[in-house]
Amino acid sequence: MFHHVVTFTFRPGVTRAGAFVLAEELRELAETLPGLRSYACGPDLGRREGNADFAVAAIFDTENALLNYLNHPEHKDIIARHVPAMVAERHGVQFADGGRAIESTEERT
Amino acid sequence: MFHHVVTFTFRPGVTRAGAFVLAEELRELAETLPGLRSYACGPDLGRREGNADFAVAAIFDTENALLNYLNHPEHKDIIARHVPAMVAERHGVQFADGGRAIESTEERT
Repeated sequence: MFHHVVTFTFRPGVTRAGAFVLAEELRELAETLPGLRSYACGPDLGRREGNADFAVAAIFDTENALLNYLNHPEHKDIIARHVPAMVAERHGVQFADGGRAIESTEERT
Repeated sequence: MFHHVVTFTFRPGVTRAGAFVLAEELRELAETLPGLRSYACGPDLGRREGNADFAVAAIFDTENALLNYLNHPEHKDIIARHVPAMVAERHGVQFADGGRAIESTEERT
């Protein structure tokens, strides 16, 4: 399985309602695409200092399904329409399930 | 379900092997605790510019199970031993499944 994780820190004045407009557009797109296993998102619970404001955690069956989502024209359009106005910081990672990669010991390049 | 998502950007010279020492200590702790539904982690696949280096994506059955993990003395000890030397940036979010929170429209405080 292939995981897609993004944390968002919003600009001042962004409401939860505004955040969910972004999240729901991304979810609706993801749900039309092949190979989506799960898609969850939500605002931070406020239980830890220094956290970001919002996160998306999606799982795809294959790397190709994940890449199809990332590179989809509609995905890029949603980001272009919402992220510049709403998002102060965005930190993403795509990764394969840890159990498989755990044998890797090479240096980072 | 309650999601715990963290992205890490490592300091120069941190190896994948070093990253997995941290990740595996966290995973081993999480797997001893009640209410863990899934725990996945891994290095970024390198498919998107500007990404962080590594992520953890865990799911707990309840908020109490998630908080028990976050506040566990061994969790804090693992972080204290590894994070200052290894991690340049760390961005975390804990959130409830989006479907439930989607009705929320209040302003962020």
